[in-house]
Amino acid sequence: MKALFYVLGTSAATPKPKRALPSYYFEHEGIGILMDCGEGTQFQVMKAGIGFSKIKVIAISHNHGDHLLGLPGLIETMSMGSRKEDLLIIGPPGIKEFLEVSFKVTTFAPSFKVYVLEITEEVEVPLRGIKLKMFPVKHHGYSFGIRVETVPKRKVNKEKLEELGVPKRLWGRLQQGEEVEWKGRVLKPEEFTWQPQGIKVVYSGDTAPCERVIEEARGADLLVHEATFLSDMEEEAHERGHSTAKDAGIIASEAKVKMLLLTHYSSRYEDLRRHLDEARRFFEYAYLAQDLMKVVIKK
Amino acid sequence: MKALFYVLGTSAATPKPKRALPSYYFEHEGIGILMDCGEGTQFQVMKAGIGFSKIKVIAISHNHGDHLLGLPGLIETMSMGSRKEDLLIIGPPGIKEFLEVSFKVTTFAPSFKVYVLEITEEVEVPLRGIKLKMFPVKHHGYSFGIRVETVPKRKVNKEKLEELGVPKRLWGRLQQGEEVEWKGRVLKPEEFTWQPQGIKVVYSGDTAPCERVIEEARGADLLVHEATFLSDMEEEAHERGHSTAKDAGIIASEAKVKMLLLTHYSSRYEDLRRHLDEARRFFEYAYLAQDLMKVVIKK
Repeated sequence: MKALFYVLGTSAATPKPKRALPSYYFEHEGIGILMDCGEGTQFQVMKAGIGFSKIKVIAISHNHGDHLLGLPGLIETMSMGSRKEDLLIIGPPGIKEFLEVSFKVTTFAPSFKVYVLEITEEVEVPLRGIKLKMFPVKHHGYSFGIRVETVPKRKVNKEKLEELGVPKRLWGRLQQGEEVEWKGRVLKPEEFTWQPQGIKVVYSGDTAPCERVIEEARGADLLVHEATFLSDMEEEAHERGHSTAKDAGIIASEAKVKMLLLTHYSSRYEDLRRHLDEARRFFEYAYLAQDLMKVVIKK
Repeated sequence: MKALFYVLGTSAATPKPKRALPSYYFEHEGIGILMDCGEGTQFQVMKAGIGFSKIKVIAISHNHGDHLLGLPGLIETMSMGSRKEDLLIIGPPGIKEFLEVSFKVTTFAPSFKVYVLEITEEVEVPLRGIKLKMFPVKHHGYSFGIRVETVPKRKVNKEKLEELGVPKRLWGRLQQGEEVEWKGRVLKPEEFTWQPQGIKVVYSGDTAPCERVIEEARGADLLVHEATFLSDMEEEAHERGHSTAKDAGIIASEAKVKMLLLTHYSSRYEDLRRHLDEARRFFEYAYLAQDLMKVVIKK
């Protein structure tokens, strides 16, 4: 089982020459989910070598400009590539109006259907082989964290089935969750199969330290957590709905994730070693997200 | 006398990894004019080392996405830099609505006044030391070419004034265009001063070959002309309101400009040598515009 995670932009609010605006990409078995779409995301997608056609869903954590403004341009570029496949966008209310006016003013119509699902509370969307969940965090207006988790096929308990002498031709139906009648007995799928754990990635979006992130990220393979500031600005950070690198380290440690990527650095910071030091004091497997970094997650 | 011209993006419609979307920048004596603002322009401004505060006016040639969508993000970044100075935006109708909705949806308010002048016909705006003119070209909807011309101070005809014995303390007023009474005689400024030629730069915007571009560019120091296609696609180019590299060469030659920069290359072209060859067959001083190229114009 394998999933890919790309960091496309790591700067908060305004870009820097080496740090583009927030966007991340998760891919599993040909299904790509783009998370956030700051201005310039389409360039980063291109530079990362991600095929635009792989992007099936775009999830927007919140409607601040640095997380949203790349959306119309990305859709225009997808259209010029003659995409036909539907695109689903999920995010807070306002996205629909923003896209409609952008398309009207630039006299543009997409070559494919764009569905916009505007949400004001948590939602879970079952995609092919992936569960996508958006859950509320502590920022401004409607702000969400994003959790993606692959849903592997159920495994059959071979020993148990062989012991009973259940013929192999019936295993597949059990695996797909069907009840099976055999020799006058009803075999229940939950008795003879089990759900292996998927790959779980959680992206905090913009948020002050938030219990909900810990809860959703519990045991995750990867937590991508904002670390806009350092802890000497803790009070200001929290007031403004942001976290410090220290906060991110503590959250990763409490959630017992396997890996933490710090991101969303305020443009005031050039050197990020202090971010890493702060987070590592609380969580050993902390790393600095960098633009165009690719993480391969195997399980 | 000196002016700077920066090429910020040279790709048509969709970007390429080494070609950003249309934007150009002209600067003279601290007054900067940004021409077009495709997605990602703020990054290119940064990479080119142009101070955001230098940009006093943004002229949008037409409202296609690749020329317009960078505007809200650029304004947000200018705001985060605590700009206080007004910004004037000139372009076709729709820009105001696009900005208003972008700002509303992203809950953003600029830290400075943004004036949007929506135009449907030609206009000339006298800035400090520069005349900015937008003139209609042949594309879609309201589409303009952009002409900028520096307006040097009038020069005094020293010999003539010395010959008459006019004291030096009066020369300045003549130079500023005032009439001066001296020894019972009225000295008219046009008799004793003359207007030196300014630096003239013309940007075609997106257009099929257009008489008006030739007229406006006559004798220009620099013509920046779109060359979306090569001449083997001439018919399609013209139908779609675009020019070929050959067209650009012919226009530069007819307008007798000093230098031609080809730009706005369709993303189908990787290698641009054929563009250069085509234009050079008609105009010797043709060059390929490249992202982040800087042209220093002295006179």
